[in-house]
Amino acid sequence: MTGVSDGESVSLDLLKKKMAEFAQERDWDRFHSPRNLLLALVGEVGELSEIFQWKGEVPKGLPDWKEEEKVHLGEELSDVLLYLVRLSDICGIDLGKAALRKVELNAIKYPVSMCKGSSKKYNSNSNNSTHI
Amino acid sequence: MTGVSDGESVSLDLLKKKMAEFAQERDWDRFHSPRNLLLALVGEVGELSEIFQWKGEVPKGLPDWKEEEKVHLGEELSDVLLYLVRLSDICGIDLGKAALRKVELNAIKYPVSMCKGSSKKYNSNSNNSTHI
Amino acid sequence: MTGVSDGESVSLDLLKKKMAEFAQERDWDRFHSPRNLLLALVGEVGELSEIFQWKGEVPKGLPDWKEEEKVHLGEELSDVLLYLVRLSDICGIDLGKAALRKVELNAIKYPVSMCKGSSKKYNSNSNNSTHI
Amino acid sequence: MTGVSDGESVSLDLLKKKMAEFAQERDWDRFHSPRNLLLALVGEVGELSEIFQWKGEVPKGLPDWKEEEKVHLGEELSDVLLYLVRLSDICGIDLGKAALRKVELNAIKYPVSMCKGSSKKYNSNSNNSTHI
Repeated sequence: MTGVSDGESVSLDLLKKKMAEFAQERDWDRFHSPRNLLLALVGEVGELSEIFQWKGEVPKGLPDWKEEEKVHLGEELSDVLLYLVRLSDICGIDLGKAALRKVELNAIKYPVSMCKGSSKKYNSNSNNSTHI
Repeated sequence: MTGVSDGESVSLDLLKKKMAEFAQERDWDRFHSPRNLLLALVGEVGELSEIFQWKGEVPKGLPDWKEEEKVHLGEELSDVLLYLVRLSDICGIDLGKAALRKVELNAIKYPVSMCKGSSKKYNSNSNNSTHI
Repeated sequence: MTGVSDGESVSLDLLKKKMAEFAQERDWDRFHSPRNLLLALVGEVGELSEIFQWKGEVPKGLPDWKEEEKVHLGEELSDVLLYLVRLSDICGIDLGKAALRKVELNAIKYPVSMCKGSSKKYNSNSNNSTHI
Repeated sequence: MTGVSDGESVSLDLLKKKMAEFAQERDWDRFHSPRNLLLALVGEVGELSEIFQWKGEVPKGLPDWKEEEKVHLGEELSDVLLYLVRLSDICGIDLGKAALRKVELNAIKYPVSMCKGSSKKYNSNSNNSTHI
Protein backbone atom coordinates (compact mmCIF):
# COMPACT_ATOMS: atom_id res chain seq x y z
CA MET A 1 0.00 0.00 0.00
CA THR A 2 2.88 2.34 0.67
CA GLY A 3 4.77 1.20 -2.37
CA VAL A 4 7.64 -0.15 -0.31
CA SER A 5 7.90 -3.44 1.47
CA ASP A 6 8.74 -3.48 5.15
CA GLY A 7 12.29 -2.64 5.98
CA GLU A 8 12.99 -1.28 2.53
CA SER A 9 14.47 2.19 2.67
CA VAL A 10 12.39 5.13 1.49
CA SER A 11 14.06 7.22 -1.19
CA LEU A 12 13.72 10.93 -1.86
CA ASP A 13 12.77 10.09 -5.44
CA LEU A 14 9.84 7.98 -4.28
CA LEU A 15 8.56 10.87 -2.15
CA LYS A 16 9.09 13.29 -5.02
CA LYS A 17 7.01 11.11 -7.34
CA LYS A 18 4.27 10.66 -4.77
CA MET A 19 4.06 14.42 -4.17
CA ALA A 20 4.00 15.16 -7.91
CA GLU A 21 1.22 12.63 -8.51
CA PHE A 22 -0.70 13.93 -5.51
CA ALA A 23 -0.66 17.50 -6.81
CA GLN A 24 -1.41 16.52 -10.39
CA GLU A 25 -4.39 14.33 -9.50
CA ARG A 26 -5.93 17.24 -7.58
CA ASP A 27 -4.99 19.93 -10.09
CA TRP A 28 -2.93 21.67 -7.43
CA ASP A 29 0.21 22.26 -9.50
CA ARG A 30 -0.85 25.86 -10.10
CA PHE A 31 -0.58 26.56 -6.36
CA HIS A 32 2.85 24.99 -6.04
CA SER A 33 5.05 27.92 -6.91
CA PRO A 34 8.47 28.13 -5.22
CA ARG A 35 7.58 30.87 -2.74
CA ASN A 36 4.16 29.39 -1.94
CA LEU A 37 5.84 26.09 -1.08
CA LEU A 38 8.57 27.85 0.90
CA LEU A 39 6.01 29.64 3.06
CA ALA A 40 4.11 26.38 3.51
CA LEU A 41 7.39 24.82 4.66
CA VAL A 42 7.89 27.66 7.16
CA GLY A 43 4.36 27.04 8.42
CA GLU A 44 5.15 23.38 9.03
CA VAL A 45 8.42 24.23 10.80
CA GLY A 46 6.28 26.40 13.07
CA GLU A 47 4.02 23.44 13.87
CA LEU A 48 7.07 21.30 14.55
CA SER A 49 8.40 23.96 16.94
CA GLU A 50 5.08 24.13 18.77
CA ILE A 51 5.50 20.49 19.79
CA PHE A 52 8.75 21.34 21.58
CA GLN A 53 8.02 24.89 22.73
CA TRP A 54 7.02 24.47 26.40
CA LYS A 55 9.01 21.35 27.18
CA GLY A 56 12.36 22.70 28.25
CA GLU A 57 15.28 20.47 27.30
CA VAL A 58 14.21 17.09 25.94
CA PRO A 59 16.40 13.95 26.16
CA LYS A 60 17.30 11.87 23.10
CA GLY A 61 14.78 9.19 22.22
CA LEU A 62 11.97 11.14 23.95
CA PRO A 63 11.65 8.53 26.76
CA ASP A 64 8.76 10.26 28.55
CA TRP A 65 6.62 11.07 25.55
CA LYS A 66 3.27 9.36 25.02
CA GLU A 67 2.84 7.32 21.88
CA GLU A 68 0.33 9.83 20.48
CA GLU A 69 2.85 12.64 20.93
CA LYS A 70 5.44 10.68 18.97
CA VAL A 71 2.95 9.98 16.20
CA HIS A 72 2.13 13.70 16.06
CA LEU A 73 5.84 14.53 15.95
CA GLY A 74 6.32 12.07 13.07
CA GLU A 75 3.54 13.81 11.18
CA GLU A 76 5.03 17.28 11.59
CA LEU A 77 8.53 16.09 10.65
CA SER A 78 6.93 14.50 7.58
CA ASP A 79 5.10 17.68 6.61
CA VAL A 80 8.39 19.58 6.63
CA LEU A 81 10.04 16.83 4.58
CA LEU A 82 7.24 16.61 2.02
CA TYR A 83 7.21 20.35 1.33
CA LEU A 84 11.01 20.35 1.18
CA VAL A 85 10.95 17.55 -1.40
CA ARG A 86 8.24 19.32 -3.38
CA LEU A 87 10.00 22.70 -3.24
CA SER A 88 13.23 21.11 -4.47
CA ASP A 89 11.40 19.40 -7.33
CA ILE A 90 9.62 22.58 -8.40
CA CYS A 91 12.95 24.43 -8.34
CA GLY A 92 14.60 21.75 -10.46
CA ILE A 93 17.04 20.74 -7.72
CA ASP A 94 17.98 17.07 -7.24
CA LEU A 95 17.71 17.05 -3.46
CA GLY A 96 19.32 13.64 -2.90
CA LYS A 97 22.37 14.48 -4.98
CA ALA A 98 22.64 17.91 -3.38
CA ALA A 99 22.45 16.40 0.13
CA LEU A 100 25.20 13.85 -0.56
CA ARG A 101 27.37 16.60 -2.01
CA LYS A 102 26.72 18.76 1.08
CA VAL A 103 27.77 15.93 3.41
CA GLU A 104 31.04 15.73 1.52
CA LEU A 105 31.56 19.50 1.68
CA ASN A 106 30.93 19.38 5.43
CA ALA A 107 33.52 16.60 5.79
CA ILE A 108 36.08 18.84 4.09
CA LYS A 109 35.06 21.87 6.16
CA TYR A 110 35.23 19.99 9.45
CA PRO A 111 38.06 17.42 9.24
CA VAL A 112 37.87 14.69 11.90
CA SER A 113 41.44 15.41 13.01
CA MET A 114 40.59 19.01 13.87
CA CYS A 115 37.16 18.46 15.35
CA LYS A 116 37.50 15.28 17.42
CA GLY A 117 37.28 16.13 21.06
CA SER A 118 36.88 19.79 20.28
CA SER A 119 33.68 21.75 20.60
CA LYS A 120 35.19 24.72 18.83
CA LYS A 121 32.47 24.91 16.23
CA TYR A 122 29.82 24.82 18.90
CA ASN A 123 31.35 27.46 21.15
CA SER A 124 32.38 29.85 18.44
CA ASN A 125 30.56 33.07 17.64
CA SER A 126 31.76 32.94 14.08
CA ASN A 127 29.44 32.61 11.13
CA ASN A 128 30.89 29.18 10.56
CA SER A 129 29.10 28.01 13.64
CA THR A 130 25.83 28.11 11.83
CA HIS A 131 26.56 25.28 9.44
CA ILE A 132 26.46 21.56 9.97
CA MET B 1 32.62 8.51 -3.44
CA THR B 2 29.08 9.39 -2.50
CA GLY B 3 28.14 5.84 -1.70
CA VAL B 4 25.60 5.71 -4.49
CA SER B 5 26.16 5.14 -8.16
CA ASP B 6 24.81 7.67 -10.62
CA GLY B 7 21.08 7.62 -11.05
CA GLU B 8 20.53 5.48 -8.00
CA SER B 9 18.05 7.06 -5.67
CA VAL B 10 19.23 8.46 -2.36
CA SER B 11 17.41 7.03 0.64
CA LEU B 12 16.62 8.70 3.93
CA ASP B 13 18.34 5.81 5.69
CA LEU B 14 21.57 6.47 3.83
CA LEU B 15 21.49 10.12 4.89
CA LYS B 16 20.67 9.10 8.46
CA LYS B 17 23.69 6.79 8.57
CA LYS B 18 25.97 9.41 7.07
CA MET B 19 24.85 12.03 9.60
CA ALA B 20 25.25 9.61 12.51
CA GLU B 21 28.77 8.64 11.39
CA PHE B 22 29.66 12.27 10.84
CA ALA B 23 28.67 13.25 14.35
CA GLN B 24 30.25 10.21 15.99
CA GLU B 25 33.61 10.64 14.23
CA ARG B 26 33.77 14.23 15.50
CA ASP B 27 32.43 13.50 18.97
CA TRP B 28 29.52 15.83 18.31
CA ASP B 29 26.74 13.55 19.53
CA ARG B 30 26.62 15.45 22.81
CA PHE B 31 25.58 18.63 20.98
CA HIS B 32 22.85 16.88 19.02
CA SER B 33 19.95 17.14 21.46
CA PRO B 34 16.45 17.42 20.00
CA ARG B 35 15.99 21.14 20.70
CA ASN B 36 19.52 22.04 19.61
CA LEU B 37 18.89 20.31 16.29
CA LEU B 38 15.47 21.90 15.96
CA LEU B 39 16.93 25.39 16.38
CA ALA B 40 19.68 24.54 13.91
CA LEU B 41 16.96 23.48 11.48
CA VAL B 42 15.17 26.82 11.99
CA GLY B 43 18.45 28.58 11.30
CA GLU B 44 18.80 26.75 7.99
CA VAL B 45 15.20 27.51 7.02
CA GLY B 46 16.14 31.14 7.61
CA GLU B 47 19.08 30.84 5.21
CA LEU B 48 16.82 29.18 2.65
CA SER B 49 14.33 32.05 2.97
CA GLU B 50 17.07 34.63 2.49
CA ILE B 51 17.70 33.24 -0.99
CA PHE B 52 14.11 34.02 -1.99
CA GLN B 53 13.45 37.12 0.12
CA TRP B 54 13.93 40.01 -2.31
CA LYS B 55 12.97 38.21 -5.50
CA GLY B 56 9.23 38.69 -5.67
CA GLU B 57 7.40 35.79 -7.27
CA VAL B 58 9.70 33.22 -8.83
CA PRO B 59 8.65 30.92 -11.71
CA LYS B 60 8.98 27.13 -11.52
CA GLY B 61 12.35 25.79 -12.62
CA LEU B 62 14.06 29.11 -11.77
CA PRO B 63 14.75 29.91 -15.46
CA ASP B 64 16.61 33.18 -14.79
CA TRP B 65 18.83 32.03 -11.94
CA LYS B 66 22.58 31.78 -12.38
CA GLU B 67 24.16 28.37 -11.92
CA GLU B 68 25.88 29.53 -8.72
CA GLU B 69 22.55 30.61 -7.27
CA LYS B 70 21.09 27.19 -7.96
CA VAL B 71 24.08 25.49 -6.36
CA HIS B 72 23.65 27.71 -3.31
CA LEU B 73 19.94 26.88 -3.19
CA GLY B 74 20.76 23.16 -3.35
CA GLU B 75 23.08 23.60 -0.38
CA GLU B 76 20.51 25.35 1.77
CA LEU B 77 17.78 22.84 0.87
CA SER B 78 20.28 20.12 1.84
CA ASP B 79 21.11 21.74 5.17
CA VAL B 80 17.43 21.74 6.07
CA LEU B 81 17.10 18.10 5.00
CA LEU B 82 20.19 16.94 6.88
CA TYR B 83 19.11 18.52 10.16
CA LEU B 84 15.60 17.16 9.66
CA VAL B 85 16.97 13.65 9.13
CA ARG B 86 19.24 13.99 12.15
CA LEU B 87 16.48 15.41 14.38
CA SER B 88 14.19 12.53 13.42
CA ASP B 89 16.91 9.99 14.19
CA ILE B 90 17.69 11.53 17.58
CA CYS B 91 13.98 11.53 18.43
CA GLY B 92 13.65 7.88 17.44
CA ILE B 93 11.29 8.62 14.56
CA ASP B 94 11.52 6.62 11.30
CA LEU B 95 11.17 9.59 8.97
CA GLY B 96 10.70 7.58 5.76
CA LYS B 97 7.91 5.46 7.22
CA ALA B 98 6.29 8.52 8.79
CA ALA B 99 6.40 10.40 5.48
CA LEU B 100 4.78 7.57 3.51
CA ARG B 101 2.08 7.29 6.17
CA LYS B 102 1.49 11.06 5.99
CA VAL B 103 1.07 10.93 2.21
CA GLU B 104 -1.63 8.28 2.71
CA LEU B 105 -3.34 10.35 5.40
CA ASN B 106 -3.30 13.34 3.08
CA ALA B 107 -4.88 11.23 0.31
CA ILE B 108 -7.72 10.32 2.68
CA LYS B 109 -8.09 13.92 3.86
CA TYR B 110 -8.17 15.34 0.34
CA PRO B 111 -9.94 12.82 -1.94
CA VAL B 112 -9.31 13.41 -5.64
CA SER B 113 -13.04 13.47 -6.35
CA MET B 114 -13.57 16.42 -4.01
CA CYS B 115 -10.44 18.37 -4.81
CA LYS B 116 -10.07 18.06 -8.58
CA GLY B 117 -10.76 21.38 -10.17
CA SER B 118 -11.43 22.97 -6.84
CA SER B 119 -9.17 25.35 -5.04
CA LYS B 120 -11.23 25.20 -1.89
CA LYS B 121 -8.34 24.19 0.31
CA TYR B 122 -6.27 27.04 -0.97
CA ASN B 123 -8.88 29.73 -0.63
CA SER B 124 -10.24 28.68 2.73
CA ASN B 125 -9.42 30.44 5.97
CA SER B 126 -9.94 27.25 7.94
CA ASN B 127 -7.17 25.55 9.83
CA ASN B 128 -7.35 22.74 7.32
CA SER B 129 -5.84 25.06 4.79
CA THR B 130 -2.50 24.84 6.50
CA HIS B 131 -1.84 21.20 5.72
CA ILE B 132 -0.63 19.52 2.56
CA MET C 1 -9.45 49.68 28.72
CA THR C 2 -6.26 49.19 26.75
CA GLY C 3 -4.28 51.51 28.98
CA VAL C 4 -3.72 53.97 26.17
CA SER C 5 -6.04 56.63 24.90
CA ASP C 6 -6.96 56.67 21.22
CA GLY C 7 -4.20 57.80 18.95
CA GLU C 8 -1.57 57.54 21.62
CA SER C 9 1.37 55.49 20.45
CA VAL C 10 1.95 52.07 21.98
CA SER C 11 5.41 51.63 23.46
CA LEU C 12 7.51 48.48 23.73
CA ASP C 13 7.77 49.11 27.48
CA LEU C 14 4.00 49.05 27.85
CA LEU C 15 3.82 45.71 26.06
CA LYS C 16 6.70 44.38 28.16
CA LYS C 17 4.90 45.31 31.37
CA LYS C 18 1.63 43.80 30.17
CA MET C 19 3.33 40.54 29.24
CA ALA C 20 5.19 40.38 32.58
CA GLU C 21 1.99 40.99 34.54
CA PHE C 22 0.12 38.47 32.43
CA ALA C 23 2.65 35.72 33.13
CA GLN C 24 3.00 36.57 36.83
CA GLU C 25 -0.74 36.59 37.48
CA ARG C 26 -1.00 33.10 35.98
CA ASP C 27 2.17 31.75 37.55
CA TRP C 28 3.59 31.12 34.09
CA ASP C 29 7.02 32.65 34.63
CA ARG C 30 8.50 29.21 35.12
CA PHE C 31 7.59 28.27 31.53
CA HIS C 32 9.08 31.44 30.06
CA SER C 33 12.68 30.37 29.59
CA PRO C 34 14.59 31.89 26.67
CA ARG C 35 14.49 28.82 24.42
CA ASN C 36 10.86 28.03 25.24
CA LEU C 37 9.91 31.56 24.21
CA LEU C 38 12.09 31.39 21.11
CA LEU C 39 10.36 28.21 19.93
CA ALA C 40 6.97 29.77 20.70
CA LEU C 41 8.04 32.73 18.54
CA VAL C 42 8.98 30.36 15.71
CA GLY C 43 5.56 28.74 16.05
CA GLU C 44 3.86 32.11 15.64
CA VAL C 45 6.02 32.99 12.63
CA GLY C 46 4.75 29.72 11.16
CA GLU C 47 1.15 30.79 11.71
CA LEU C 48 1.91 34.16 10.14
CA SER C 49 3.40 32.41 7.10
CA GLU C 50 0.35 30.19 6.73
CA ILE C 51 -1.77 33.28 6.11
CA PHE C 52 0.35 34.16 3.08
CA GLN C 53 1.34 30.71 1.87
CA TRP C 54 -1.07 30.02 -1.01
CA LYS C 55 -1.68 33.59 -2.09
CA GLY C 56 1.09 34.22 -4.58
CA GLU C 57 2.35 37.78 -4.59
CA VAL C 58 0.23 40.13 -2.50
CA PRO C 59 -0.01 43.90 -3.17
CA LYS C 60 0.71 46.51 -0.50
CA GLY C 61 -2.28 47.41 1.66
CA LEU C 62 -3.94 44.04 0.95
CA PRO C 63 -6.72 45.63 -1.14
CA ASP C 64 -8.58 42.36 -1.83
CA TRP C 65 -8.51 40.88 1.65
CA LYS C 66 -11.69 40.49 3.68
CA GLU C 67 -11.90 42.34 6.97
CA GLU C 68 -11.76 39.06 8.91
CA GLU C 69 -8.54 38.11 7.14
CA LYS C 70 -6.97 41.41 8.14
CA VAL C 71 -8.07 40.95 11.74
CA HIS C 72 -6.54 37.45 11.72
CA LEU C 73 -3.33 38.85 10.24
CA GLY C 74 -3.20 41.51 12.98
CA GLU C 75 -3.49 38.77 15.57
CA GLU C 76 -0.64 36.71 14.15
CA LEU C 77 1.61 39.76 13.77
CA SER C 78 0.78 40.56 17.40
CA ASP C 79 1.61 37.06 18.62
CA VAL C 80 5.05 37.33 17.03
CA LEU C 81 5.54 40.77 18.60
CA LEU C 82 4.40 39.72 22.06
CA TYR C 83 6.73 36.72 22.20
CA LEU C 84 9.56 38.86 20.84
CA VAL C 85 8.98 41.46 23.56
CA ARG C 86 8.78 38.75 26.22
CA LEU C 87 11.90 36.94 24.96
CA SER C 88 13.85 40.21 25.00
CA ASP C 89 12.69 40.95 28.54
CA ILE C 90 13.61 37.48 29.82
CA CYS C 91 17.05 37.81 28.19
CA GLY C 92 17.59 41.22 29.80
CA ILE C 93 17.70 43.04 26.48
CA ASP C 94 16.16 46.53 26.14
CA LEU C 95 14.45 45.90 22.81
CA GLY C 96 13.51 49.52 22.11
CA LYS C 97 17.03 50.81 22.66
CA ALA C 98 18.49 47.94 20.66
CA ALA C 99 16.11 48.62 17.76
CA LEU C 100 16.96 52.34 17.60
CA ARG C 101 20.66 51.47 17.70
CA LYS C 102 20.16 48.95 14.87
CA VAL C 103 18.41 51.55 12.70
CA GLU C 104 21.45 53.79 13.14
CA LEU C 105 23.85 50.96 12.31
CA ASN C 106 21.83 50.24 9.18
CA ALA C 107 22.04 53.90 8.17
CA ILE C 108 25.82 53.73 8.43
CA LYS C 109 25.95 50.42 6.56
CA TYR C 110 23.72 51.63 3.74
CA PRO C 111 24.42 55.34 3.13
CA VAL C 112 21.72 57.13 1.13
CA SER C 113 24.27 58.40 -1.37
CA MET C 114 25.33 54.89 -2.29
CA CYS C 115 21.94 53.21 -2.19
CA LYS C 116 19.60 55.73 -3.80
CA GLY C 117 18.45 54.41 -7.11
CA SER C 118 20.49 51.30 -6.73
CA SER C 119 19.14 47.87 -6.01
CA LYS C 120 22.59 46.47 -5.37
CA LYS C 121 21.73 45.15 -1.95
CA TYR C 122 18.70 43.40 -3.29
CA ASN C 123 20.37 41.80 -6.26
CA SER C 124 23.53 40.75 -4.53
CA ASN C 125 24.30 37.20 -3.46
CA SER C 126 26.56 38.45 -0.70
CA ASN C 127 25.84 37.83 2.95
CA ASN C 128 25.22 41.53 3.29
CA SER C 129 22.06 41.08 1.33
CA THR C 130 20.43 39.40 4.27
CA HIS C 131 20.31 42.46 6.49
CA ILE C 132 17.95 45.39 6.53
CA MET D 1 20.49 61.27 17.91
CA THR D 2 18.04 58.44 18.34
CA GLY D 3 15.09 60.76 18.47
CA VAL D 4 14.24 59.82 22.04
CA SER D 5 15.79 61.08 25.23
CA ASP D 6 17.24 58.56 27.64
CA GLY D 7 14.68 56.55 29.54
CA GLU D 8 11.86 57.59 27.29
CA SER D 9 10.02 54.58 25.98
CA VAL D 10 10.33 53.66 22.33
CA SER D 11 7.01 53.42 20.51
CA LEU D 12 6.05 51.19 17.61
CA ASP D 13 4.99 54.30 15.70
CA LEU D 14 8.46 55.80 16.01
CA LEU D 15 10.01 52.63 14.61
CA LYS D 16 7.42 52.55 11.83
CA LYS D 17 8.29 56.11 10.83
CA LYS D 18 12.02 55.42 10.93
CA MET D 19 11.65 52.33 8.75
CA ALA D 20 9.44 54.17 6.25
CA GLU D 21 11.91 57.07 5.99
CA PHE D 22 14.81 54.65 5.69
CA ALA D 23 13.22 52.84 2.76
CA GLN D 24 12.03 56.01 1.04
CA GLU D 25 15.42 57.75 1.25
CA ARG D 26 17.04 54.75 -0.43
CA ASP D 27 14.26 54.15 -2.96
CA TRP D 28 13.71 50.69 -1.50
CA ASP D 29 9.93 50.85 -1.22
CA ARG D 30 9.60 48.81 -4.40
CA PHE D 31 11.34 45.86 -2.72
CA HIS D 32 9.17 46.02 0.37
CA SER D 33 6.23 43.89 -0.73
CA PRO D 34 4.40 41.88 1.95
CA ARG D 35 5.87 38.49 1.04
CA ASN D 36 9.38 39.85 0.50
CA LEU D 37 9.27 41.35 3.99
CA LEU D 38 7.80 38.17 5.45
CA LEU D 39 10.64 36.06 4.04
CA ALA D 40 13.16 38.62 5.29
CA LEU D 41 11.55 38.28 8.73
CA VAL D 42 11.89 34.48 8.54
CA GLY D 43 15.54 34.96 7.63
CA GLU D 44 16.10 37.09 10.73
CA VAL D 45 14.29 34.58 12.95
CA GLY D 46 16.76 32.04 11.59
CA GLU D 47 19.69 34.24 12.63
CA LEU D 48 18.13 34.66 16.07
CA SER D 49 17.80 30.89 16.39
CA GLU D 50 21.42 30.36 15.41
CA ILE D 51 22.49 32.30 18.49
CA PHE D 52 20.71 29.79 20.73
CA GLN D 53 21.12 26.62 18.68
CA TRP D 54 24.05 24.83 20.35
CA LYS D 55 23.64 26.19 23.84
CA GLY D 56 21.23 23.70 25.44
CA GLU D 57 18.91 25.27 27.99
CA VAL D 58 19.78 28.89 28.80
CA PRO D 59 18.88 30.55 32.14
CA LYS D 60 16.94 33.82 32.32
CA GLY D 61 19.07 36.94 32.15
CA LEU D 62 21.81 35.05 30.27
CA PRO D 63 24.23 35.26 33.24
CA ASP D 64 27.15 33.52 31.49
CA TRP D 65 26.98 35.33 28.17
CA LYS D 66 29.75 37.69 27.10
CA GLU D 67 28.82 41.31 26.49
CA GLU D 68 29.46 40.90 22.75
CA GLU D 69 27.05 37.96 22.61
CA LYS D 70 24.34 40.05 24.25
CA VAL D 71 24.95 42.91 21.82
CA HIS D 72 24.67 40.45 18.93
CA LEU D 73 21.45 39.05 20.41
CA GLY D 74 20.02 42.58 20.71
CA GLU D 75 20.79 43.13 17.03
CA GLU D 76 19.04 39.99 15.89
CA LEU D 77 16.01 40.65 18.10
CA SER D 78 15.92 44.13 16.57
CA ASP D 79 16.10 42.84 13.02
CA VAL D 80 13.06 40.66 13.66
CA LEU D 81 11.23 43.61 15.23
CA LEU D 82 12.08 46.05 12.45
CA TYR D 83 10.86 43.72 9.69
CA LEU D 84 7.74 42.95 11.72
CA VAL D 85 7.01 46.68 12.09
CA ARG D 86 7.64 47.24 8.41
CA LEU D 87 5.54 44.26 7.32
CA SER D 88 2.64 45.48 9.46
CA ASP D 89 2.92 48.97 8.01
CA ILE D 90 2.98 47.71 4.43
CA CYS D 91 -0.06 45.54 5.13
CA GLY D 92 -1.93 48.48 6.63
CA ILE D 93 -2.11 46.92 10.09
CA ASP D 94 -1.76 49.11 13.21
CA LEU D 95 0.58 46.78 15.09
CA GLY D 96 0.39 48.57 18.45
CA LYS D 97 -3.40 48.57 18.52
CA ALA D 98 -3.51 44.95 17.34
CA ALA D 99 -1.05 43.90 20.05
CA LEU D 100 -3.02 45.58 22.85
CA ARG D 101 -6.20 43.96 21.55
CA LYS D 102 -4.46 40.56 21.46
CA VAL D 103 -3.34 40.92 25.08
CA GLU D 104 -6.96 41.51 26.03
CA LEU D 105 -8.16 38.52 24.00
CA ASN D 106 -5.53 36.38 25.74
CA ALA D 107 -6.76 37.59 29.14
CA ILE D 108 -10.27 36.45 28.25
CA LYS D 109 -9.01 33.14 26.86
CA TYR D 110 -6.88 32.39 29.90
CA PRO D 111 -8.66 33.76 33.01
CA VAL D 112 -6.39 34.11 36.05
CA SER D 113 -8.79 32.06 38.20
CA MET D 114 -8.47 29.06 35.89
CA CYS D 115 -4.78 29.31 35.12
CA LYS D 116 -3.18 30.24 38.43
CA GLY D 117 -1.18 27.34 39.76
CA SER D 118 -2.12 25.25 36.77
CA SER D 119 0.15 24.32 33.94
CA LYS D 120 -2.70 22.89 31.93
CA LYS D 121 -2.04 25.04 28.91
CA TYR D 122 1.58 24.01 28.86
CA ASN D 123 1.02 20.29 29.25
CA SER D 124 -1.87 19.98 26.86
CA ASN D 125 -1.61 18.57 23.38
CA SER D 126 -4.53 20.64 22.23
CA ASN D 127 -4.24 23.31 19.59
CA ASN D 128 -4.92 25.86 22.29
CA SER D 129 -1.53 25.13 23.71
CA THR D 130 0.08 26.94 20.83
CA HIS D 131 -1.17 30.37 21.74
CA ILE D 132 0.06 32.82 24.34
